Amino acid sequence: MFTGLCAFPLTPLRQQDIDEQAFSRILARLTDAGVDSLGILGSTGSYAYLSREQRRRVVQVAKAHAGSIPMMVGVGAIATSEVLRLVEDAQQAGADALLLPMMSYQPLAAEEIYAFYEEVCRHVSVPVCLYDNPRTTHVTLPDELQTRIAALPAIASIKIPGLPEPRASERVAALRRHLPARVSLGVSGDAWATVGLQAGCEVWYSVCGGLFPHLSRGLVNAIRAGDTTEVIALNEQLAPLWRCFDRYGGSLRVIASAAAILGLCDPDSLPRPLLPLGEEARRDVATALHGLA
Amino acid sequence: MFTGLCAFPLTPLRQQDIDEQAFSRILARLTDAGVDSLGILGSTGSYAYLSREQRRRVVQVAKAHAGSIPMMVGVGAIATSEVLRLVEDAQQAGADALLLPMMSYQPLAAEEIYAFYEEVCRHVSVPVCLYDNPRTTHVTLPDELQTRIAALPAIASIKIPGLPEPRASERVAALRRHLPARVSLGVSGDAWATVGLQAGCEVWYSVCGGLFPHLSRGLVNAIRAGDTTEVIALNEQLAPLWRCFDRYGGSLRVIASAAAILGLCDPDSLPRPLLPLGEEARRDVATALHGLA
Repeated sequence: MFTGLCAFPLTPLRQQDIDEQAFSRILARLTDAGVDSLGILGSTGSYAYLSREQRRRVVQVAKAHAGSIPMMVGVGAIATSEVLRLVEDAQQAGADALLLPMMSYQPLAAEEIYAFYEEVCRHVSVPVCLYDNPRTTHVTLPDELQTRIAALPAIASIKIPGLPEPRASERVAALRRHLPARVSLGVSGDAWATVGLQAGCEVWYSVCGGLFPHLSRGLVNAIRAGDTTEVIALNEQLAPLWRCFDRYGGSLRVIASAAAILGLCDPDSLPRPLLPLGEEARRDVATALHGLA
Repeated sequence: MFTGLCAFPLTPLRQQDIDEQAFSRILARLTDAGVDSLGILGSTGSYAYLSREQRRRVVQVAKAHAGSIPMMVGVGAIATSEVLRLVEDAQQAGADALLLPMMSYQPLAAEEIYAFYEEVCRHVSVPVCLYDNPRTTHVTLPDELQTRIAALPAIASIKIPGLPEPRASERVAALRRHLPARVSLGVSGDAWATVGLQAGCEVWYSVCGGLFPHLSRGLVNAIRAGDTTEVIALNEQLAPLWRCFDRYGGSLRVIASAAAILGLCDPDSLPRPLLPLGEEARRDVATALHGLA
């Protein structure tokens, strides 16, 4: 399942609780488009802000929509004990894989990070994707630590942040040199998807794919087919959206705003303390959406 | 209550659940020494790693020991909704004040941080101490934002990280210029306690005070009395402990190790993913303890 387009949908809220109807509308777009996999409760799915009960409900709703599409579920938390409870919940609700970031409060030693993955992996019954996202977790995972963790039999993929060339190719090559063949690499950071896939990543862990699955699917297909004209055309279409990600504090608030503009969820669907974008930013996002096919 | 020595005890665990007996032993040291206030569920109290139920129990146990000593309770969480639940729990369990950090997952805009404090402060019935600890929260609170937050009527104190001179005096003076008179300043970062108190902080938010309340009490008294000889002597006594804080990833693991050496809790009392110190580090801590009166 760790190949192609993995779509990370929002978890839209209404008055700070799960908006199941809006979530179902977003999920239907993804299943209709036939994404390769779903990435439920990723950063875009606001996992870090939801209670255990809310996360359990989100996974249940997603599973009811997923059909035959494999579903990966984020199980990050600061405390290992909470992660183990979330693993249990996700697996019981039908998760086909788990997305596991190393969150932190106290700065962690490499040995503590390794021991965390080792302990969690001992408790899982489905494959695990190692989630490397220092921007939100503030945990830096050096390549040698990632490859050491990836030697744990449960690890099936690594989700790495996007990078420009030549660093993308260098990083993919450096990781590959020490990774078991079973471990796929996936790129996130949507603006770097093309670079990442061309550098050899097998999967796009995609925020954009969680709301615009046809366009994202088209980009993956064009890259695989080596259709440079189409790749350039799609990147040009998406560039204004990605500029909004840069301008407005990352992808989450922008994608939530885009979903509201499309009539899929409330204008205020984000978990507090996050606030929806202001009027000017929303206009920018609306303009970016106009350019999308 | 935001003056003098505020002692932050460990929350010792046994097999990853609250070790109430060990916690009671530690609390008894603090109440026997007559600290000015208790800081329950601070960073040293591992608040970020405990479930809502565990935190509720910790506050209940602490309240049962506190007697007439005012008790401040940490209520930090990534999601505002969880913070509001923790506020309710802490107040019901008898908290006399709340310690409120700005935790983060997605990087936050200044307006989001202000709105968070504004919303939480609207729901509290006891005074709030603004907790500034970028090392663990990865949220930087510029002085102008802190003074804006401190204008909220519920804010009664600010817990700032320790700084060397002349930056300590400059920072205290800069904050004071814009702070309401009701808002006290407190220094944390134990090695900087003397500098912070001499620079004008009214309270020492103290990790060391959570395990060595007599020594810490003595330091506060000597500083207040202007007894330079005693201040120097106490700092020299404590210096080896503070060097361990620097060497071994911060104060928490060191203080947990010290508490175990004193026979107060298990050698492994930390919440996973945190690991207890290794043998060599523990020997260093033991040596540092030998020098304490």
